[in-house]
This record gives sequence, structure tokens and C-alpha cells, in this order.
Amino acid sequence: MNDPSVTIFGDWGTSRLRLYLRQGKSVLDRRDGPGIGALTASPRETFLSLVGDWREAKPSLALLCGMVGSRNGWAEAAYAPCPAGAADLRARLLHLDADGLPVAIVPGLSCVNALGGPDVMRGEETQILGALELDPALKRGRRLLALPGTHTKWVVVEDGAITSFLTAPVGEIFALLRQHSILAKAAPGDGPESPEAVAAGFARGVARIVEQGPARLPHLIFETRSRQLLDGLSKDEAMGFLSGLLIGGDTASTASWFGDLGSVSLIGAPALSALYAQAIAALDGSSTAVDGDAAVLAGLTTLSPSPTSGVHVLA
Amino acid sequence: MNDPSVTIFGDWGTSRLRLYLRQGKSVLDRRDGPGIGALTASPRETFLSLVGDWREAKPSLALLCGMVGSRNGWAEAAYAPCPAGAADLRARLLHLDADGLPVAIVPGLSCVNALGGPDVMRGEETQILGALELDPALKRGRRLLALPGTHTKWVVVEDGAITSFLTAPVGEIFALLRQHSILAKAAPGDGPESPEAVAAGFARGVARIVEQGPARLPHLIFETRSRQLLDGLSKDEAMGFLSGLLIGGDTASTASWFGDLGSVSLIGAPALSALYAQAIAALDGSSTAVDGDAAVLAGLTTLSPSPTSGVHVLA
Repeated sequence: MNDPSVTIFGDWGTSRLRLYLRQGKSVLDRRDGPGIGALTASPRETFLSLVGDWREAKPSLALLCGMVGSRNGWAEAAYAPCPAGAADLRARLLHLDADGLPVAIVPGLSCVNALGGPDVMRGEETQILGALELDPALKRGRRLLALPGTHTKWVVVEDGAITSFLTAPVGEIFALLRQHSILAKAAPGDGPESPEAVAAGFARGVARIVEQGPARLPHLIFETRSRQLLDGLSKDEAMGFLSGLLIGGDTASTASWFGDLGSVSLIGAPALSALYAQAIAALDGSSTAVDGDAAVLAGLTTLSPSPTSGVHVLA
Repeated sequence: MNDPSVTIFGDWGTSRLRLYLRQGKSVLDRRDGPGIGALTASPRETFLSLVGDWREAKPSLALLCGMVGSRNGWAEAAYAPCPAGAADLRARLLHLDADGLPVAIVPGLSCVNALGGPDVMRGEETQILGALELDPALKRGRRLLALPGTHTKWVVVEDGAITSFLTAPVGEIFALLRQHSILAKAAPGDGPESPEAVAAGFARGVARIVEQGPARLPHLIFETRSRQLLDGLSKDEAMGFLSGLLIGGDTASTASWFGDLGSVSLIGAPALSALYAQAIAALDGSSTAVDGDAAVLAGLTTLSPSPTSGVHVLA
């Protein structure tokens, strides 16, 4: 007989799998594995091999969120439409069986965003619902949340339901430019990498895009290079400047559709959230930070189906 | 004795060297070589080896423009400041000697651009001055020119002098996203590459950014992916859509600082100029096209020093 108090939680994104063995609200053990984009075996085989001896604790369910539910994941869990709260997603869990262990996959969300276009997320919905549990004040009224990352999500929550969101691939564009572009090249005079120089460049980039407005982003990006050639900007300062332009531009553009930014809840890795907090402050907003891993655990807890509820299981 | 009517012209950019042997206004021969970014020998050695038997025609001068005058080129020709016309650049040619053959390098230009930031160009100044020779009407009044490319330049010419310009690395960002991004992936249902699908996607991308405004670029870029997932956009349509967003965003942002676009002179490769012409038309402007290679030749002609003028030669 399975033990209803023991469950497995999983956050399975493109680049990383993080599994937790839980009893009640305690984490007994944690294991990391490959992301959906880096598998060498099927998701099912990968999962079962990582779970291994955890089976001895007789978990009643493994609840997984993220790209595991995408077309290229374990099984496709159709996007749930916005507005959606925890109950809506709980009702749309995709149930599977893995060698006798019940598995449930959290669906992603789709919406018509603030620009009238389609938008999608997978994994962030769980973090958002978790943040609402960690800070229940966020369930009241109209709130703006942001999940900085490869594809930064700006999310509107109204009375506890996710009503719309907007994605900007800021992290991806920055990484591509940093790695491949001729916009920021090391110069002979550059010293060893300096976090202070990166931070100074970042502040300058944020100030520049806030002053000129987000419509100027394509042209300001080239300043990264021209300031290296003409103003003696170091490579570190240039990388910080570029990051400030991109994060500041994303934030300034969001401010222009959301209206007054007010207090933004940032969910994610602390270092990246701190950069967005700086850009939000430069636009006269304020922010609070929620750790991304804590938000995932709280989200999976609130999305866990009641042990007595009937479920439809796919073989 | 050198023959003053025989000269060598060279357009030596980052990715390509194009050399012309000229007598009067006729091109006798043409040779291609590696760009400054792809050299296997020094610029001087590369140049002399390519010129080879052209020396028998006793050229009086080799006049070169482009990245050959950059810090990483043959010799650094300091940027000339704007405003600058043909006479200003002619007076600032950098003169060298290559094994007895006089060589002159056209300096690049620097300016304080419309956003109050520094900007630079190398090579485009020669094309611009050439376009003014090919269409002398452009020398009258205030004109907007554009040189689409890896780093698109928007250029203001007033009464025949280049007064300011603004660069957007649109081509570079597009190439990076096309090559590396997860924003546009081939789907199983995609057929063979279709120019019609790319063109349809491009028109849709331009319409979308013109409707929403250039400040929305970071968020609209993600639609490339979400429309593939939700609207069945093919990979070709998605690539066209992304290109339309980037070119349309660059053009719309330019329109907002230049004011009424009016009639823009596009200098460059015809296929790329045609895409910018579409974006300009979507913003109620009009355009005419000047072939980039023809503009280089006309520019080098107007920048050629008089054979009788005294020059300072560096060994």
C-alpha cells in the first residue's frame, strides 16, 4: 500500500530536473537529473532510474511540472487557458502510470497577452501559484509578478487567478550576444573580470534606456560597441551595459502596458531578481523577491490532488 | 613611372575584400579576397599577393575603404567627426606605401547620434558619398539614407554633408536568433523551405510591430515561438515574422526620431533593401534603391586624391 503522506515532487525544465522526496511538508531527499533538452534516455526511463530506491518509501504520487509536459517531453499536457487558479490546474493534471507509481503532470498555461497575441508558459504557473501561497496578500486585487530568466515572464494575477502574461526572451538574447556577437570584444587593456565593472555598466545601461525609452533598444544596443571604441568602456562594463539595456528595456516596455508598476513580486534566482529589482526601482516601482525553488515546492503542494479524489490514469 | 589614369579601388570589410583595377572610369578587372576578420596573413601581404600582376599596369594608387582602416586592420585611420563631406574625408586619407605602390585608406566617421550617444561607421561613408554622386539631388536639403546590413545605419545628410547617423545591429541579432535560438524550430509538419512562406511571415511581422509600436519588440519577438505552438506558424513563416519584427522595429524607431520618413534612399544589396522598402512603406514612407557595389565605386572615385596633390606617406 502506498503511503499518502509520501510524495515525489519534480521541477523538470529544459535544462534541469530537480526531484524531491517529501513526507508531509518535509523534504527527505533531493536528486538532480538532466533537463528535457538534454536527455539520453526516454523521460520515463530517466525518471524511474533517478527515483530508484525512493520507491521503498511507497510514495503515493509523483507530481511534475515544467517542460516534461511539452510536446517533446514525457507526454503533452495541453495548455490550460487563462484565467486560471490552482483549482483549474488541479482539475487538468495529466495522469500517467510509471511502473506502478502514479505520476501527474501540471499543464502549462496559454493566454491572449496584453499585446493581443498568443503567449504560453510551462513551469512558471507552478511557481506563481506557489508565490501566492507563500505570500497570501498577493491573492488580493490586481498584482504584477515577474519571473526573470531565459524567457522572462511578466504575469498579471487578479484575485488569485492568473489572468494574462507576457514573455520577453531577454535572457536568451543576452546570452547569444555575449557568446557570439562582435558588439562586446575583449580589448588589450582589459584586466581580469570585475563584478564591480559589470555592475557599473549595468546601472549605466538601465539609466540610458529609461532616459531614451524602450523603443530605442535596437539602436542603443549598438552603443555597447561604440562606447568601447570611443569612450574606453571595458568588456565587463560593456557586458553590464548590454544587460542593463535589455533588462531595463523589457521592464520599461512592461511599465508602459501595465501602467504604474507599483510593487512587483520577483520570482526566481536571487542574483537575477536583484537586477530586475534595480530596473524596477529606476522606473519608480518597488519589488519583493521570492526564491524560485521555494515557490516551486509551494506550488506543487497546492497543486497536489487530494489523495481521495478519483483520477483518470493513462497506461 | 606610374600611370595616373590607372588605380586600384578596394572595399575591404570584416567579411569580404573586393578589389577593382580601374582605368579612368572603367573597371578592367576584379578580384575577391578574405575580409579583415578572416585573414591568414597580414593585410599588407594579403593585399600584395592579390594585386600581383596588376602592378604591370603601373597603378598610381590603391584607395581602400572599410574595416581595413580599423584598429584590427592594416593601419588605424582615425574616425573623422561629423559633419563631414567628401572634401573632409579626402583631406584625412591615411597614406601608406606597399612595396612602392602608394596606398590610401579612407577614414571612418564618428558622430553624436540622435539619441545623444556615440556612433561609428567604416566603409558606409564611402557608399553614402557615392550615392550622392549617383543621385546629386540627394545633396540638396535634409535627407534620410539607410544602409541595411549586419549593422544597419540610418544616416542624415544635410546639403551634401553627413551630419549624423544611428546604428542598429539588426542583421546580427537576426542571424544569431535564426542560427541558435529555440524561438524558431522546425516542426514535423514543415515542408521544404518556401520563399512565399517567409515573405508572408515577414509582412505579418512588419504589420504587427507597426501596429504595436517599436517599444514592444522584446515581447513581440516571443510571439515567433508562441505562434508556432498555438497558431500553426511554420518555421519559414516564423523566420519571416521575426525578420519583419526586427526590420520593422528598427524602421519604426527611426521614424519616431527622424520625424516623417519621407523618401529614404536605401543603399545596399537589392534583396535586403527590398525588405526595408516594405517596412518603410508600412510606415507611410517611400524609398529608392542604390546598389551598394555601384555606390562604393562612385564613392571611391569622389574620394580619390588629385594626382598632383602632395601627400604625407608613412613607410
